[in-house]
Amino acid sequence: MKQEFFTLRWTGAELQLIDQTLLPGTIAYIELNSYEAVSDAILHMKVRGAPAIGIAAAYGMVLAAKAAPATDLSSFRAALSQAASHLVKSRPTAVNLHWAVERLLSQAEASDALAIPDIIHALEQEAVLIHDEDRQINRAIGENLLTLLKDGDTVLTHCNAGALATSEYGTALSVFYLAQEKGIRLKAYADETRPRLQGARLTAFELLHNGVDVTLICDNMAAVVMAQGKIDAVIVGCDRVAANGDTANKIGTFNVSILAKHFGIPFYIAAPTPTIDLCCTSGADIPIEERSSREITMIDQHRIAPEGIKTYNPAFDVTPAAHITAIVTEKGIVYPPYTEHLSKLFE
Amino acid sequence: MKQEFFTLRWTGAELQLIDQTLLPGTIAYIELNSYEAVSDAILHMKVRGAPAIGIAAAYGMVLAAKAAPATDLSSFRAALSQAASHLVKSRPTAVNLHWAVERLLSQAEASDALAIPDIIHALEQEAVLIHDEDRQINRAIGENLLTLLKDGDTVLTHCNAGALATSEYGTALSVFYLAQEKGIRLKAYADETRPRLQGARLTAFELLHNGVDVTLICDNMAAVVMAQGKIDAVIVGCDRVAANGDTANKIGTFNVSILAKHFGIPFYIAAPTPTIDLCCTSGADIPIEERSSREITMIDQHRIAPEGIKTYNPAFDVTPAAHITAIVTEKGIVYPPYTEHLSKLFE
Repeated sequence: MKQEFFTLRWTGAELQLIDQTLLPGTIAYIELNSYEAVSDAILHMKVRGAPAIGIAAAYGMVLAAKAAPATDLSSFRAALSQAASHLVKSRPTAVNLHWAVERLLSQAEASDALAIPDIIHALEQEAVLIHDEDRQINRAIGENLLTLLKDGDTVLTHCNAGALATSEYGTALSVFYLAQEKGIRLKAYADETRPRLQGARLTAFELLHNGVDVTLICDNMAAVVMAQGKIDAVIVGCDRVAANGDTANKIGTFNVSILAKHFGIPFYIAAPTPTIDLCCTSGADIPIEERSSREITMIDQHRIAPEGIKTYNPAFDVTPAAHITAIVTEKGIVYPPYTEHLSKLFE
Repeated sequence: MKQEFFTLRWTGAELQLIDQTLLPGTIAYIELNSYEAVSDAILHMKVRGAPAIGIAAAYGMVLAAKAAPATDLSSFRAALSQAASHLVKSRPTAVNLHWAVERLLSQAEASDALAIPDIIHALEQEAVLIHDEDRQINRAIGENLLTLLKDGDTVLTHCNAGALATSEYGTALSVFYLAQEKGIRLKAYADETRPRLQGARLTAFELLHNGVDVTLICDNMAAVVMAQGKIDAVIVGCDRVAANGDTANKIGTFNVSILAKHFGIPFYIAAPTPTIDLCCTSGADIPIEERSSREITMIDQHRIAPEGIKTYNPAFDVTPAAHITAIVTEKGIVYPPYTEHLSKLFE
């Protein structure tokens, strides 16, 4: 995939990120050289998207290891563990963050017999591996999604589960890039995705820049385009999939799933297996982050609602398994009943 | 109803309007003394809301009559007729605009035997009557809506069908103001209503300023609050009701109606009878205005989507009659089958 920007890059000494809060107006990169800076970038959504957050957190752990006291192993491990809990707190809903941090902690434990510089080296290799795996996972998800579509189809997506949410390709959006490589014509409709407008700012930006035919709509226009017969399938990413198939994703996904059900349109979740959390029995167990009122009342520095207005701003919602036609992973397409079929992926 | 602002006021010489494009930040009034200025204010949504547009257009006709050549009747009538077609074109979806202009034209015709100054006087009386009737219609709609709710209920509304959309009270929002007068406790959730944010800018503003307990959400959060059991009923206004009950209203209303149906929540349309258009057989006959791409890609002067992005921006959608629990008019509550029951209102 050739693109004019990159989402994240590891130099060996620092993590470089495109600052997603400045898109689509400005393409600018930030350089992070501490785990605190990584955590801060996650918290302020300079990097977002469950897979990208996971990769960033893995490099955050490497930066923590490099800055940790290298004199004795117990101080070193205490520093790592502190960094881990700091990073995990930056966003509660995405399971990849937790998963990546745990994977680095396990690596540190497995490398216990080594000297500290060698442990750091092993951690760096593990983070790079997570990064590489993500790229391959996305291509495989795209290949699997393509089997569910036909030439000429139009797909509605919500939020941004694209190149900007991952290492490259994206999860939900990988299908557009792979279709392009194969000469299959797919069109996209992108929900703008209030309140943070990831659809308008990010999905519209990356699809447009990469030559995909994309039409931007407001979230509340999805019913009309569906009723007009314009949408053949809905494909969205996810922040966490529970064992029963209930799926947490950006606020508004649940809404779209009800519309898709109403119109009989297939509704697919693009889910890398690290996003599947078998420890969560159902959606009721997934913590939903509530974010600042400012996201609703202000657009950047511009006020769009009266001072003093009360708001409700959940960052995610849970789409019940019953609304999901299939969960598409890098290991294959999973159909209901999900409780039975999702667990098989991990056997 | 006591409020800190007025929507429109006729001085006898000019029409004063609150400039709704400046809300909620600035309360400022504009003075219009020609029908062209009125048409322009409607086109640019300085005044909006089907009933308010109708009243404004009626005064626009009075201003046209005052400016028309008073020398001979045929020139006078030609000028009136030209003003009428100019005004009607300013927004195609709301039927009240057409209805009010036609009512003024009929009045002019009925006054044919009078001298021109007396015709102008009769037109002014007719416009004032439309204005007064609207206030009474809104109170009656509110009274009827109240019979469908109980103390402690929470109502979701979309767009602005409030005091700012009418002479006073509003259609959908009248229920909150009447409840307040009667000591009945009702809470409101307001959809922000992209792209023009009438929910955030206008509904949140007027309910908050009038002491109603209101929570602002993004359009795509309605499913979550419904799933949480927070919503007892949905009440929205309308721009045109067809003979079969299909209802055109602000974009996103159709979306909410599908959600309400999914969750088994009653969905009510607040409809002054001038908004009911028996000449439209069904929603398919209602013209839907498409507005500028800028409304989606910019918030005021602030760009939120990439340059060159394609958009789709219908200003209204049509909620099928099957999704509507009842249509609440000033003459009573109308239940399905609408084709039969709506026509009875006009017998």
